[in-house]
Amino acid sequence: MSRRASGSIPALVLRREGARAAFTPDTLVVEEPLEIRIREEGARESTPLLVTMRTPGEDEDLAMGLLFSEGLVTAPEEVLSMSGPDDARIAAELARNILIVTLRRPENGARVAPRRATVMGSACGVCGRMSIEDVLAVGQRSRGTGAMSGEDLRVPAALVTSLPDTLREHQKVFSSTGGLHAAGLFDRNGRVALVREDVGRHNAADKVIGALHRERRPPLPIMLVSGRLAFEIVQKAVLAGVRILAAVSAPTSLAVELAEEAGITLIGFLRGERFNAYTHPERILPGA
Amino acid sequence: MSRRASGSIPALVLRREGARAAFTPDTLVVEEPLEIRIREEGARESTPLLVTMRTPGEDEDLAMGLLFSEGLVTAPEEVLSMSGPDDARIAAELARNILIVTLRRPENGARVAPRRATVMGSACGVCGRMSIEDVLAVGQRSRGTGAMSGEDLRVPAALVTSLPDTLREHQKVFSSTGGLHAAGLFDRNGRVALVREDVGRHNAADKVIGALHRERRPPLPIMLVSGRLAFEIVQKAVLAGVRILAAVSAPTSLAVELAEEAGITLIGFLRGERFNAYTHPERILPGA
Repeated sequence: MSRRASGSIPALVLRREGARAAFTPDTLVVEEPLEIRIREEGARESTPLLVTMRTPGEDEDLAMGLLFSEGLVTAPEEVLSMSGPDDARIAAELARNILIVTLRRPENGARVAPRRATVMGSACGVCGRMSIEDVLAVGQRSRGTGAMSGEDLRVPAALVTSLPDTLREHQKVFSSTGGLHAAGLFDRNGRVALVREDVGRHNAADKVIGALHRERRPPLPIMLVSGRLAFEIVQKAVLAGVRILAAVSAPTSLAVELAEEAGITLIGFLRGERFNAYTHPERILPGA
Repeated sequence: MSRRASGSIPALVLRREGARAAFTPDTLVVEEPLEIRIREEGARESTPLLVTMRTPGEDEDLAMGLLFSEGLVTAPEEVLSMSGPDDARIAAELARNILIVTLRRPENGARVAPRRATVMGSACGVCGRMSIEDVLAVGQRSRGTGAMSGEDLRVPAALVTSLPDTLREHQKVFSSTGGLHAAGLFDRNGRVALVREDVGRHNAADKVIGALHRERRPPLPIMLVSGRLAFEIVQKAVLAGVRILAAVSAPTSLAVELAEEAGITLIGFLRGERFNAYTHPERILPGA
């Protein structure tokens, strides 16, 4: 079954400008739900993991990235296969919105549970501190952190300011719809390696990280995302072994705290020749 | 216990512009997890519903809005109380990230389950069509749809183009951090009634709709959100009885489909004197 899909569809829109109005052809970014299901090696039945709204296409990248971000897998080899349902009763239109991920049986027999536990009534609980420790603990188990050779990474400011134009050149759908988020991974020289787009900012990050893992590439040290920098985006970057994480908009308090502790250089408001470094600015060389 | 909180915190940031660099005081929008728990009337124990990252403050608005958006409550009277945990073992720092919602026992004894069901293997399933029908079905049960007197709503284009400035004037935190999304509800004359901000676009919408319900106000016909228009934002607007939903960015395919079927006028790319009407443009009067 082909899981290829178009990211945009044509539409007719009434365009207003002051007193003028005209129906005009336009293009919309596609949004559809995707249900990701988990099947254990050798089992016939699968169980639902989550449903997410996404732009169809590159669903396997999205699923692989999500499994890493949720800490369910820590190496791409743990994913044996990904495919649509083989149940003939399911119409093709629905089948392409379902992805079944078959996971290798864990060596100790126990799968790590998704991290979104609720722990009220214990000494720990829901707080920013715990969220950060969670991510750092998962990072220890994952191949991302530690496997990175970017600890000595130093880049000139001009490399940082070149990233947005490079990302934009590699976006496919945005220019036609204006409606897609993008995430890109770059090597230490600022050359783009992978770009993915999605209607959701988090999905775009999961897709590009998932693609990295699916292609069995070594970690890439630089990531740029459109939009803002909230905690979950930094979490994904940490688990993927990113060292410099940049965005065109503002970071949040918890994003900055996590980046600080995980040793990530967090860059916000990256626009033209300007940017702010919120954490670990030592990786950005003085001078232009 | 006070659940008041500041939406931003000070930070020191290395500001780069070309070759120049200087550490500068800055302000970050606060992001912290919130766990929402549900307690049935008369019960002692509560069960976790979800954990969401949010900007602290107006947590009760957020919870009320989320319960409506998820279809768990259809009238504000179903919420008996909202409070932090009364367990003394929980430190204050954690307690303010937990909100327990006590719900009136349903008349027929059965609580409606959250809508995010997974239904593989049946004739229906995960597809855009089902997502839309889900929302329309919940809308039938909720006070929003139908209770609206805005069916005959007609507004001049100038009212639409005035909304972004009005919203911006009422935002509190954005100007200092650049990091917050906002959602506003307006009356039929374009006067702002409620504005809420949050680090999450969906949270801002839930907060403003939750505030509407908590204040027992009648539905308001016009809503403006920052950012883009994806399915879930339209879903929230439908269930709140909104008639005109506007945003400064692009809508998605599924957002347009749902707005079309729910009878909502969907406006995107609202910038200056310009905007696009994707559905039901008849509510916008010809002329400036």
